[in-house]
Amino acid sequence: MRGVSAEDAARAELHRLRSSIDNLDAALIHLLAERFKCTETVGRLKARAGMPPADPAREAVQIARLRSMAESSGLDPHFAEKILNVIIGEVIRNHEQFAEEREG
Amino acid sequence: MRGVSAEDAARAELHRLRSSIDNLDAALIHLLAERFKCTETVGRLKARAGMPPADPAREAVQIARLRSMAESSGLDPHFAEKILNVIIGEVIRNHEQFAEEREG
Repeated sequence: MRGVSAEDAARAELHRLRSSIDNLDAALIHLLAERFKCTETVGRLKARAGMPPADPAREAVQIARLRSMAESSGLDPHFAEKILNVIIGEVIRNHEQFAEEREG
Repeated sequence: MRGVSAEDAARAELHRLRSSIDNLDAALIHLLAERFKCTETVGRLKARAGMPPADPAREAVQIARLRSMAESSGLDPHFAEKILNVIIGEVIRNHEQFAEEREG
């Protein structure tokens, strides 16, 4: 019986880590789905109330809060801000669409 | 006593939704922090084993899986892919840095 080579051990460890990454990604997708359910309701509410799609003051507070939370959980705050900006960009596009649908 | 105006009701509903969004964002940041802990270990392991930082076959499988998961959870699959690409881009940059540190 031959022993486990360093390469085999590395492959096994990589497999284990990837399985955790896949689990975290599944959670991530479901969290994002839930977040967009909330922002869809926000978008419809804003369109109905004639509120503007973007809210720069609220966004600044969100970014500061998440940067600080990233820092304390060991995530690069610059990356946290980047991800939040991608999400907010998508949300604003959706809100604008709701507003257009209402006006159109 | 005056009744609640439509605007007050909209503001209260917006406040409630934003509080849920903030909770989901906190979960999101902590999930991402955990995911980057895993990929940091993957990066060091790959650098040690001399494996390439990127793995296009693995990425294609991840993207297909998450697009399908997004679809069934009501999240735009195109957006899910976009977010995953931002994350993977960051992970590969980190992996390249580990490889350079090891070589340098």
